Amino acid sequence: MPTTDIATGTRAVRNVLFIMCDQLRADYLSLYGGRIPTPNLERLAKRGVSFERAYVNSAVCGPSRTSYYTGRYPASHRVTWNRVPLPLDEQTLGDYLGSAGLPLRLLGKTHFVPDRAGLAELAGAHSQSDPERRRLFEEGGFVPIERYDGHFEPEAASPYRAYLQSRGYASDKPWTDYVIGSHASDGKFASGWLLRNAALPARVLAEDSETAYLTQRAIDFITQQGDTPWALHLSYIKPHWPLKAPAPYHALYGAGDCDVPIRHACERQNPHPVFGAYQRLEESVSFARDEVWRTARPVVMGLVRQIDDELGRLFDQLEQLGRMDDTLILFTSDHGDLAGDHWLGEKEYFFEPAIRVPCIVVDPSPAADTTRGKVAPEFVESIDMVPTILAALALDPRTHRVEGRSLLALTRNLPAAAHWRDCVFGQLDYAYREARTFLGRGPDECQGWMVRDTRYKYIHWEGYAPQLFDLREDPREFHDRGTDPALHGVRGAMRQRLFDWLSTRKHRATETLAQVEARTHAHERMMGIQIGKW
Amino acid sequence: MPTTDIATGTRAVRNVLFIMCDQLRADYLSLYGGRIPTPNLERLAKRGVSFERAYVNSAVCGPSRTSYYTGRYPASHRVTWNRVPLPLDEQTLGDYLGSAGLPLRLLGKTHFVPDRAGLAELAGAHSQSDPERRRLFEEGGFVPIERYDGHFEPEAASPYRAYLQSRGYASDKPWTDYVIGSHASDGKFASGWLLRNAALPARVLAEDSETAYLTQRAIDFITQQGDTPWALHLSYIKPHWPLKAPAPYHALYGAGDCDVPIRHACERQNPHPVFGAYQRLEESVSFARDEVWRTARPVVMGLVRQIDDELGRLFDQLEQLGRMDDTLILFTSDHGDLAGDHWLGEKEYFFEPAIRVPCIVVDPSPAADTTRGKVAPEFVESIDMVPTILAALALDPRTHRVEGRSLLALTRNLPAAAHWRDCVFGQLDYAYREARTFLGRGPDECQGWMVRDTRYKYIHWEGYAPQLFDLREDPREFHDRGTDPALHGVRGAMRQRLFDWLSTRKHRATETLAQVEARTHAHERMMGIQIGKW
Repeated sequence: MPTTDIATGTRAVRNVLFIMCDQLRADYLSLYGGRIPTPNLERLAKRGVSFERAYVNSAVCGPSRTSYYTGRYPASHRVTWNRVPLPLDEQTLGDYLGSAGLPLRLLGKTHFVPDRAGLAELAGAHSQSDPERRRLFEEGGFVPIERYDGHFEPEAASPYRAYLQSRGYASDKPWTDYVIGSHASDGKFASGWLLRNAALPARVLAEDSETAYLTQRAIDFITQQGDTPWALHLSYIKPHWPLKAPAPYHALYGAGDCDVPIRHACERQNPHPVFGAYQRLEESVSFARDEVWRTARPVVMGLVRQIDDELGRLFDQLEQLGRMDDTLILFTSDHGDLAGDHWLGEKEYFFEPAIRVPCIVVDPSPAADTTRGKVAPEFVESIDMVPTILAALALDPRTHRVEGRSLLALTRNLPAAAHWRDCVFGQLDYAYREARTFLGRGPDECQGWMVRDTRYKYIHWEGYAPQLFDLREDPREFHDRGTDPALHGVRGAMRQRLFDWLSTRKHRATETLAQVEARTHAHERMMGIQIGKW
Repeated sequence: MPTTDIATGTRAVRNVLFIMCDQLRADYLSLYGGRIPTPNLERLAKRGVSFERAYVNSAVCGPSRTSYYTGRYPASHRVTWNRVPLPLDEQTLGDYLGSAGLPLRLLGKTHFVPDRAGLAELAGAHSQSDPERRRLFEEGGFVPIERYDGHFEPEAASPYRAYLQSRGYASDKPWTDYVIGSHASDGKFASGWLLRNAALPARVLAEDSETAYLTQRAIDFITQQGDTPWALHLSYIKPHWPLKAPAPYHALYGAGDCDVPIRHACERQNPHPVFGAYQRLEESVSFARDEVWRTARPVVMGLVRQIDDELGRLFDQLEQLGRMDDTLILFTSDHGDLAGDHWLGEKEYFFEPAIRVPCIVVDPSPAADTTRGKVAPEFVESIDMVPTILAALALDPRTHRVEGRSLLALTRNLPAAAHWRDCVFGQLDYAYREARTFLGRGPDECQGWMVRDTRYKYIHWEGYAPQLFDLREDPREFHDRGTDPALHGVRGAMRQRLFDWLSTRKHRATETLAQVEARTHAHERMMGIQIGKW
């Protein structure tokens, strides 16, 4: 039990700051050897452990975030795509922290959708009768300071909308007109929805942009809390589309500064059917064109640079308040980005740029002093965030539900670190994607499952041959060995790992392990039943 | 869609009678060539289709019944053992019928346990505020005429208890003292809990025994309904333990009349670890003794004979009321029985006597006239009952949740019959059993998974080698080929079937398939989002 190792000195964990970006791939960052300078992330990494093999359990916002917020694989929490309501029986980090008296505050995006229909079915009209609980239900356990899912014109009641208007952005659609809107060289309005306009500066000042606004609200909240413990999910909505950066970030980088896409002509020749269908999606067709990625990628770089700058402001304040000494800080992203890699736009597929994300854990405990600044090679999955937070706060680890592992084992070099996982798992349900209709499949016939270890990546596709990549021989994943006779044995072994994993998910979650222990062979003792006695 | 084929004439399905026995194996019955005369089941079978390959999805009451009541595999509904609360997001046959205005009445056993803790967590004190919905929640969607789970002294409020006392069984424990109690030859009280007393007659009259009482209540209910449509689950608690039959059924059969156990000395030599652990359970040690099965089996035979007699009374009344013409009748059991087979007592394991159950479907529709009296060879699973009932009543088939298939395809010889399943699946979570402690395993390390086709039965055990039986060469399942090099390829193919099955379960159940269709590639149309457009 890692929780027993928590120091109780002045550097005990009292607060939690869980920072997430949206669609931020790891390899872009200087933190991981990439081209975007991220001095503030590097500064954070020096205080803790950065993980170079951190993977999401799904490269789609909805299922990935639900894994981050429940500590469970998509196969277990069953939110397999965006806006799929969370089943009523699931519990979230907010539920766990809230029941311990530490509300999980939210600033930014969750993408969470409650199962209102299920609740109505279960509880009828009375599902409305307790406003506080109802609010928690609606927000997946988070207590919004301000929920801001981004990517849309904010609703009328949005504080950010009011803020924009108070700052003089005079419009009924300030987000559309200013935050993602630009003026073209001819003076006409240029919509941020279109990639051709991505390089134009936003009409919003950097200090009023989404990233700066959310950061300032976080600084204000943390400052106002004083010495009262808090837990905050600061969830940026960038560098996700619409791709639009304010000055000066829009112009920091040009086409010559960005990585060229990781792609090879052979990938378009007779691709795996699902891969081929994804190549046909509109965003893939766009990003396959050189002018598109050459326009888009520098904007992403600028947006990431802005996040790093804003994090610098936040970290300065944490230091000034002394909060660096009693706050567990997690930094990651809900998934990566393809932006032309492998002839695909967006994310979703199982290629490394889509599934590998940055991950930094700052554990203020003196027990973690020996690992500060370390770059850890162990595999991390999204499901590890919940158990890490529960362990840091010495809360019940909910081992009957939570499927991830506490990263404190690695920050504090606990015995559990010696038996770490040797692979990661992913899932993709492409039922909601046009790729499904290209393939003529039904909405319940679209599951993909991935297992990746240090050498191989194996993908099982429902109804099709598998895909297999030899990451040592082919680190850029150009050559699908899914039907190569020479690797028959490897595929069998990887499929067996997937099966072993799938057959050991935590399905039975309505009883704790302690309850199972108590009820084991207890029929006579607990219920007075005698079975099979002569 | 089978529902479109329902006749609308005078023999349309208006009522549902879903009859279940507890722990009734198929091969004992004359209906299936066994030694117990079951003339009334044969009479019922002549009216419909009897299935000779009907299998439960778990040979334990709780998970098996939950599959019967939800139409979902244990891996999906997650009630993997007895008294595991049903997750809040699951829906049951009672929910489906109730929302169509046809309450699912209950007489007898369900073994259902609600997730009260989960509901309290979700809805707080308000979970109590709507008594009617609360009652449905407590009962898993059933509307009890009388819930009677058996196997215990009934609670003070039990109508059966009051009935017994009104009939002169003067005791505070009338069930213990009379229903399962006997007088030994020396005049002393002989408890029905002990197998040594099984052959002694119960102190209750046959007409006041559990089987007769539940049947009479069913006859009364159906009669009182008149022409008002109804759905009734008549759920007998016999021939489950405690083994105690009233006169004359206690003495109808003797040791010479019953089947000798299906067992072989080789099964005790170096058995598979899980099989070996089950052989060590108290009931297995008991039933391995000849005097135990020779005492117990004739009592089971008498109890089954009584059920058949009582069903005769019920069917007479259905005929007299004309209800045979407008009632869908299903007859089955929640699992089978071992009673010494394979050196095991009770059930749970994957041997045929434990998982194969009787199954009769009487479909009054004229569309089913061509199949009356047929013995069908197709594989049937517990999960087929819900879709059969929904189809017969032309209700929404809930294909996003329900994993079974409508048996009307077979009673009405619909096109779907041409593409029927070719195997059945089973699951066993032995976490709650002493077998786990014998093996030194944790409560989350005890999954067993079975796939059985017409030739082979393959069992994947978490942490151990698999088991494999060649049912053609070894129909009595004496010779475990789980490590036989000659069958390596067979095991690989069967494991692949298990994986394909497990990876296609209906996890995403909070959206219907129609909702997925509507949301496919709909981001621009439904939400005004433009992704990847130049």
